[in-house]
Amino acid sequence: MNTFGKQLTLTTFGESHGPAMGGIIDGFPAGFKVDFDSLLKEVAKRRPGSSPLVTARNESDTPEFLSGISPEGITLGTPIGFIVRNSDHRSKDYSEMAKVYRPNHADYTYIKKYGIRDARGGGRQSARETVNWVVAGALAQQWLLSKDIKVETVLSQAGPVTAGDIFDGLMTRPGEPYTLHVDPALQSAMEEVVMRCKKEGDSVGGRVSCLITGVPAGIGSPVADKLHARLAAAMMSINAAKGFEYGIGFRAAAAKGSDTADRFIPTGSPDVPLQTSTNYSGGIQGGISNGMPIFFSVAFKPAPTLMMPLETADTQGNAAVVMPAGRHDPCVAVRAVHVVRAMAALVIADSMLC
Amino acid sequence: MNTFGKQLTLTTFGESHGPAMGGIIDGFPAGFKVDFDSLLKEVAKRRPGSSPLVTARNESDTPEFLSGISPEGITLGTPIGFIVRNSDHRSKDYSEMAKVYRPNHADYTYIKKYGIRDARGGGRQSARETVNWVVAGALAQQWLLSKDIKVETVLSQAGPVTAGDIFDGLMTRPGEPYTLHVDPALQSAMEEVVMRCKKEGDSVGGRVSCLITGVPAGIGSPVADKLHARLAAAMMSINAAKGFEYGIGFRAAAAKGSDTADRFIPTGSPDVPLQTSTNYSGGIQGGISNGMPIFFSVAFKPAPTLMMPLETADTQGNAAVVMPAGRHDPCVAVRAVHVVRAMAALVIADSMLC
Amino acid sequence: MNTFGKQLTLTTFGESHGPAMGGIIDGFPAGFKVDFDSLLKEVAKRRPGSSPLVTARNESDTPEFLSGISPEGITLGTPIGFIVRNSDHRSKDYSEMAKVYRPNHADYTYIKKYGIRDARGGGRQSARETVNWVVAGALAQQWLLSKDIKVETVLSQAGPVTAGDIFDGLMTRPGEPYTLHVDPALQSAMEEVVMRCKKEGDSVGGRVSCLITGVPAGIGSPVADKLHARLAAAMMSINAAKGFEYGIGFRAAAAKGSDTADRFIPTGSPDVPLQTSTNYSGGIQGGISNGMPIFFSVAFKPAPTLMMPLETADTQGNAAVVMPAGRHDPCVAVRAVHVVRAMAALVIADSMLC
Amino acid sequence: MNTFGKQLTLTTFGESHGPAMGGIIDGFPAGFKVDFDSLLKEVAKRRPGSSPLVTARNESDTPEFLSGISPEGITLGTPIGFIVRNSDHRSKDYSEMAKVYRPNHADYTYIKKYGIRDARGGGRQSARETVNWVVAGALAQQWLLSKDIKVETVLSQAGPVTAGDIFDGLMTRPGEPYTLHVDPALQSAMEEVVMRCKKEGDSVGGRVSCLITGVPAGIGSPVADKLHARLAAAMMSINAAKGFEYGIGFRAAAAKGSDTADRFIPTGSPDVPLQTSTNYSGGIQGGISNGMPIFFSVAFKPAPTLMMPLETADTQGNAAVVMPAGRHDPCVAVRAVHVVRAMAALVIADSMLC
Repeated sequence: MNTFGKQLTLTTFGESHGPAMGGIIDGFPAGFKVDFDSLLKEVAKRRPGSSPLVTARNESDTPEFLSGISPEGITLGTPIGFIVRNSDHRSKDYSEMAKVYRPNHADYTYIKKYGIRDARGGGRQSARETVNWVVAGALAQQWLLSKDIKVETVLSQAGPVTAGDIFDGLMTRPGEPYTLHVDPALQSAMEEVVMRCKKEGDSVGGRVSCLITGVPAGIGSPVADKLHARLAAAMMSINAAKGFEYGIGFRAAAAKGSDTADRFIPTGSPDVPLQTSTNYSGGIQGGISNGMPIFFSVAFKPAPTLMMPLETADTQGNAAVVMPAGRHDPCVAVRAVHVVRAMAALVIADSMLC
Repeated sequence: MNTFGKQLTLTTFGESHGPAMGGIIDGFPAGFKVDFDSLLKEVAKRRPGSSPLVTARNESDTPEFLSGISPEGITLGTPIGFIVRNSDHRSKDYSEMAKVYRPNHADYTYIKKYGIRDARGGGRQSARETVNWVVAGALAQQWLLSKDIKVETVLSQAGPVTAGDIFDGLMTRPGEPYTLHVDPALQSAMEEVVMRCKKEGDSVGGRVSCLITGVPAGIGSPVADKLHARLAAAMMSINAAKGFEYGIGFRAAAAKGSDTADRFIPTGSPDVPLQTSTNYSGGIQGGISNGMPIFFSVAFKPAPTLMMPLETADTQGNAAVVMPAGRHDPCVAVRAVHVVRAMAALVIADSMLC
Repeated sequence: MNTFGKQLTLTTFGESHGPAMGGIIDGFPAGFKVDFDSLLKEVAKRRPGSSPLVTARNESDTPEFLSGISPEGITLGTPIGFIVRNSDHRSKDYSEMAKVYRPNHADYTYIKKYGIRDARGGGRQSARETVNWVVAGALAQQWLLSKDIKVETVLSQAGPVTAGDIFDGLMTRPGEPYTLHVDPALQSAMEEVVMRCKKEGDSVGGRVSCLITGVPAGIGSPVADKLHARLAAAMMSINAAKGFEYGIGFRAAAAKGSDTADRFIPTGSPDVPLQTSTNYSGGIQGGISNGMPIFFSVAFKPAPTLMMPLETADTQGNAAVVMPAGRHDPCVAVRAVHVVRAMAALVIADSMLC
Repeated sequence: MNTFGKQLTLTTFGESHGPAMGGIIDGFPAGFKVDFDSLLKEVAKRRPGSSPLVTARNESDTPEFLSGISPEGITLGTPIGFIVRNSDHRSKDYSEMAKVYRPNHADYTYIKKYGIRDARGGGRQSARETVNWVVAGALAQQWLLSKDIKVETVLSQAGPVTAGDIFDGLMTRPGEPYTLHVDPALQSAMEEVVMRCKKEGDSVGGRVSCLITGVPAGIGSPVADKLHARLAAAMMSINAAKGFEYGIGFRAAAAKGSDTADRFIPTGSPDVPLQTSTNYSGGIQGGISNGMPIFFSVAFKPAPTLMMPLETADTQGNAAVVMPAGRHDPCVAVRAVHVVRAMAALVIADSMLC
């Protein structure tokens, strides 16, 4: 229940208000030289408090690797155990929370499942868990890069502001290098939306888009472990995710077959003799990569913790009001940009190793 | 790679042009009386040729159960093996197909993965595989119904015609029985879109929406097997699926937290003392059911087989034209309505048994 | 609960008195030419009624392959579904059995687990299930042979007669081809033991030994999936198995380290530059193959069905007497010789593919 | 590859000469009060240096629990992460070892599998890994005890000295409480064997027997996850294990059916109305517990590290001599007594939760 992956697996633990988070990465290839500086930089990107746009919780978030890597930084093929200490508990903030079921939180469902809940924080439902994923994802990204596979992510929507149509951009430039591009003006507009929410004590939803280039054709599986089904499951595992689409996505429902056929065209290159003229398929056909860039987007809901009183019920079933406490994350999608990248890297690396 | 589920598993086999499809359902509870008449009716709904809206391929699609059920129709707790013979091969139709890579089919990705392809049909990529899922899903639905859990699905979009906002309907009627309702006029409009595509030899995308009522609070898992992540993976496993959203879905990206908080309200009922005033969460919070109706939608692309010549490349890498052959399914979402229901039932039953 | 293996998996179904047994082999490599004649011969070896030494139940035991293999006999990389019809039910033989708990059978434990039992036969506890394993194992053996890996098995004990010390023979002839050799006189003595038991209506235990040659060094896993742990689990899954040992086995408990060290010695061969002077390790060190022959033995108990009245209790908890009925297998180890070979082949093939 | 179990899983990491060992226990029931004092005592039993009979390596072996348990010591139902620091590396001892393949060690097989080896110690092949199992097993034992299930183990053989026939003792006393009893004189004789080996710098094999009482009937699975197959796999995962037998074990090969039938007899007790007159089955029939005590034994080889020069080959393929270094464990079975108990508890607890 706390394990991701098949060949390259990540098993995690940790309550947000316990001593530490951590995980075990199993199946990572032996003999790979880890670049720890680059890894720490990648992990730092998701850190709370790293930007005015995100929650203020301050954790150093430096993983301690306990196994699976030699003193020289070479992976041994054995499981890589790591922990990340929780340095900023502030558990007093949460004392009142134990008595109410906060709207859109998992307080109620936890009690229904386990009959017990660590009221100090979000337990396993806290986004603190994603630090484990980002550590593992950073390793996976390094390994993928050594095979010329690159995972990019971008905030493509914040509230009403959407970053043009990134997907259409990808469609119309075959031959040119694929990249995620967001207009700087739109980027500023999105940041403004988030800052306004922050001031108002409110929160806003968002969308993250991901582009993966360099994946060779033939990765994935045709029935139960379709590559896009695995991506969907990984993305929907991220806190606050409400939707997943790949390639043409939900616009497919309105499209005609004759308008969206990705025709195979000879490239003249002996390495990759064929590609498709368009990429409505989003790089995956029948659950298996076709060598084109993989493209998908994930929708995130607004964070449920608001800096304003909210009506709800308490654990006794009586009406109650939740008062603001804890930290406030005006747009979880901002940090999810880095979590999506981590999870995508884990899925692709795992699928490559299957 | 051909197994779905954890406690209630379905492992399947079958090429569309081989002798039979089939599967093994493992973990089905012992002592359950199977209603075979109702099961056959449910399976028949997805059958090709069952309506003018769908492909003409004609299969009797009667499953033969080989184990796990006593002569009296009682499940034994042991694996339920079944096969469904393929009666209508017409493999000659496909002979020309072996030489080209059809656009948006998985011909190319199969060759890249396996180095071999059963050119007679779609191999495992064929939607014929879904007959296995519908058989297993029909059993799962019967078991769920015995626990007052009901899975409903509906075609909620075909091309440009969308069935109003089903989701909003669900939101505004707390207390009343939840049900999927599509306006008959819109339904006719959707059918017209499909029939027009059929005449033109073209195809069109669609959307299927699903409502699951009666699931108790506490089902699911908080991290790696979130209930909605499992639903997403199952739905994205269905042929032609391009997107998944639950609850408020992609609209979450534009929403504010203060507008979308599902407040807990006392019901006065001793059985279920709390429910939420709205259901933006779609019945799942933190990966675990909260007792409210579960609601999600799936987008499907237009089928890639068209009754018109399509430019593409052949297996030698030269430009080629695919000529129409085989059967034509103007809107795969029409049949997917029944496949979504089957897969949803399997996921919910499995999660109940975990 | 009915699946063996990790990469090469076998999922099975079938009650001995239902319509058919069957299974799905998933993960079998694509592009392998199956020799069906040789496969049928291998399957026939385990068939009841194939020798005077075994039970008289007569089944044709011809598997019908339903998928995963092209008409030309080439594997497609997709799951291989097969069924084996049950032709000789004789369920009337078993009617009395429904009322009592037979000694050393699983009647009682089944009722305790499932609350229901298909009284017509052994349900899933019947050795009929092993026909599924032998079909899959025959395919695995063919694939292994194509890589020069050979699995041999022999009856090495029947009652008091043990076939000399096969293991010591293997130890003392480094350089010579390894083979399982049983003295013909001992073989006759074992057969005599079995025939005498048959006449007396009694049964006798036995031991099966297995030699696997050609497995390259490096196969297996060091912690949770040690190669010998996987072999042990597979062997202990065979009906009536009571013990497993590999290499020096239980004699290790009495041995000294200085007497049983397998010293590495240069071979002069560039392909395999090292081997060990002795093979107390049985071809596996630290859970991973070392290139030496893999050797293990499995102990089987006497079959519990005897041709004599046995005191026991009935399902109401009263004392009762079981009268002989059904077929009588005087020494299950005789047929287990072929089942051990099948299961060993599945484990080795799976481990090669991991 | 580093995960044990199905519902109650243990995933581990750690090289013997890295910073720490550790693991994640997933699926442990919520709401259980952990007795940390008793847990530490149980863990201490397997510690190296805890008795003159075992290796001198000195580790404090105090686990640090990082999640899954509330400050009040109550399990939360979430994964329990823990680490055990390695305090006594002495990695200089091992420098010479990197150049040779030690007899009966896994040096050679590791290089063949991974192409890289952490020469400082045994990597994952080190028995240091078992500290993880003992921590998890101690928790499992506490939970089992709360359900009146008790796991006992004993050293039943050391070299030529065997502890009478423990199994026969169990057979002849139905009605009396079952317990493992070893004659004190035999126990002294076994200790003497070990001490003599220690002085000689040699090592000796041994056998550990295990008795599990209180397991209700109906636990286990009839085909692929037979309870005894799971026990076998767990036991054969323990370092130096060479054989596993349960119930009558290898003696079954020589036995007659009429002599070894476990007849069901009414007990007169309403709770457990039936038991068997004898227990040749060892508490398991058809892979499922029958309510009788579960009994099995495991054979261990002599440790391969000796305090005397041993001829072997170096990594270049030349003849070489291994000189004594590192710590010396004259009889690994002595410590395995506690590891067998831990692994047995994990398997039984997992099977109870399935």
